[in-house]
Amino acid sequence: MGGDFGPRSIVQASLACLNATPSLHLTLVGQPSLLEEMLSGQTAVDRARLTITPASEVITMDEKPAQALRSKSDASMRVALELLRDDKVQACVSAGNTGALMALSRYVLKTLPGIDRPAMVAAIPTRTGFCQLLDLGANVDCSAEHLLQFAVMGSVAAETLGIARPRVALLNIGTEDIKGNQQVKLAATLLQGARGINYIGFVEGDGVYRGEADVVVCDGFVGNILLKSSEGLATMIGERIESLFRQSLASRMVGALALPLMRRLQADLAPARHNGASFLGLQGIVIKSHGSAGVQGFQSAINRAVIEIQENLPERLHGRLEDLLT
Amino acid sequence: MGGDFGPRSIVQASLACLNATPSLHLTLVGQPSLLEEMLSGQTAVDRARLTITPASEVITMDEKPAQALRSKSDASMRVALELLRDDKVQACVSAGNTGALMALSRYVLKTLPGIDRPAMVAAIPTRTGFCQLLDLGANVDCSAEHLLQFAVMGSVAAETLGIARPRVALLNIGTEDIKGNQQVKLAATLLQGARGINYIGFVEGDGVYRGEADVVVCDGFVGNILLKSSEGLATMIGERIESLFRQSLASRMVGALALPLMRRLQADLAPARHNGASFLGLQGIVIKSHGSAGVQGFQSAINRAVIEIQENLPERLHGRLEDLLT
Repeated sequence: MGGDFGPRSIVQASLACLNATPSLHLTLVGQPSLLEEMLSGQTAVDRARLTITPASEVITMDEKPAQALRSKSDASMRVALELLRDDKVQACVSAGNTGALMALSRYVLKTLPGIDRPAMVAAIPTRTGFCQLLDLGANVDCSAEHLLQFAVMGSVAAETLGIARPRVALLNIGTEDIKGNQQVKLAATLLQGARGINYIGFVEGDGVYRGEADVVVCDGFVGNILLKSSEGLATMIGERIESLFRQSLASRMVGALALPLMRRLQADLAPARHNGASFLGLQGIVIKSHGSAGVQGFQSAINRAVIEIQENLPERLHGRLEDLLT
Repeated sequence: MGGDFGPRSIVQASLACLNATPSLHLTLVGQPSLLEEMLSGQTAVDRARLTITPASEVITMDEKPAQALRSKSDASMRVALELLRDDKVQACVSAGNTGALMALSRYVLKTLPGIDRPAMVAAIPTRTGFCQLLDLGANVDCSAEHLLQFAVMGSVAAETLGIARPRVALLNIGTEDIKGNQQVKLAATLLQGARGINYIGFVEGDGVYRGEADVVVCDGFVGNILLKSSEGLATMIGERIESLFRQSLASRMVGALALPLMRRLQADLAPARHNGASFLGLQGIVIKSHGSAGVQGFQSAINRAVIEIQENLPERLHGRLEDLLT
């Protein structure tokens, strides 16, 4: 029921995913009358694989997480997470209030043993492919131990996406040992001694886009700034190129070549909006789609949930943490 | 004598600036025989406005600041700063080791009253013009008071570049009061009560490039990551567009339109490399040019020094700090 535009695009994305993935079952959680009305206009709905679980309340996008946690026991987001906790579903996907989703996820699902705080991860494009960047804003102040936990989680997440021995780096303002703040320096020491992680050292901001690492670890403040400034910069470059291409007929004709590239890049650089971001470290799979995600964006988020289910991400993570921490 | 490629491009940039600015006098600090040799090949050198001050030692690019400070009393960088301290020159421009330049600047020149730590500022391009971003890496851990001082310094720096009542914002991961870490939240409270600053609130990463503020304040870790990741992203986008334009003859022809734009953007996004960054908060004007700056980059850095001399930047800053802190 959340998101900036309500459930309409979520319903459409759900139907598209059901058509594309025959083994998929979906449960829509929210106000039944509204959801039924949206479904009634659609053709070819396989209702055997689409159920509705009622929830009477909605957490708004600007509601404080603590308040949402205390006061709305029948919020769609909460009921969805309870379905996950009770093994009625295998993953939860939401376009709602990020802070509330994180707070409710921690409260309802709990974190995995060895994880103090869940992290938010998404893939950003690089010169050579993609890199998993975490944390993206769930944790603003992080200790070295938190960064170590993020590194483990990011590494396992990259493996589930098909990357063998992912190269894990700490984001820093230089590559020499003496650079950086205390948390980063201490995290480097912890990572050097950590089993089962292919830790390659520090990476700088430009190195992220050069593809120097498969997993880049930082605190949520820095990760959020990196991600959003990149999104803003890509948008600005796209606008400048568009305006350049409007200046002459010849340039308009060839602008058609460059603009799709820029649009794809802009989409890749807004992964939370377009492809969904995973919450890692919970006893369950939770995918955050952007509040303003369109149909395609929410489809991507559902697809990411399917991959994490197939790869048993939380169980793999649990096993890896046991190896590492014992 | 510093920089990745030694003094050759610095000598050339100096000569170009002397030709372009008739009122300019320059002093080259370094090994006289080497500098004379480089000058001997040049025509039309106005030696009345170009002097050489000898310095026998050179601080290398990977030398630790503390070591450079202790052991090299006749380093070109140090001698140049001493000329500035002794009023023999009005500004110091260097392409050398950033950390050493900052440490030596603080030691030789001292900070202005009311400033705990100098900051490094540079202009980055936005949708609507430019914004002054600081700190860029001189200070990794900052208190709220440091951020307040950066805000004052950035505001005055923007004014000297011709911006009336510059809009000053704190970089944060959200625009609501509850967002961010403790330092940022506390700095917001301090800035709300600060006289003489046009504080407009929080700005997010994407808002920086949307041009929401003229001055964006953050700690040096975050600023460095934002700047370098932007530089890396712009380079990556430029490469992708170039490769796209190589794919067909028609696209090659029109690629000529887009590539200069991308090169200019890439240059703008590497301000420390291309346009010089200012050290603010010192009792003297110090401009850092990038270690790999070419002739044009170092010329820009000299020009920035000239502007700061004309605008009396340190004196203006001193006056503003007195107003604010008393």
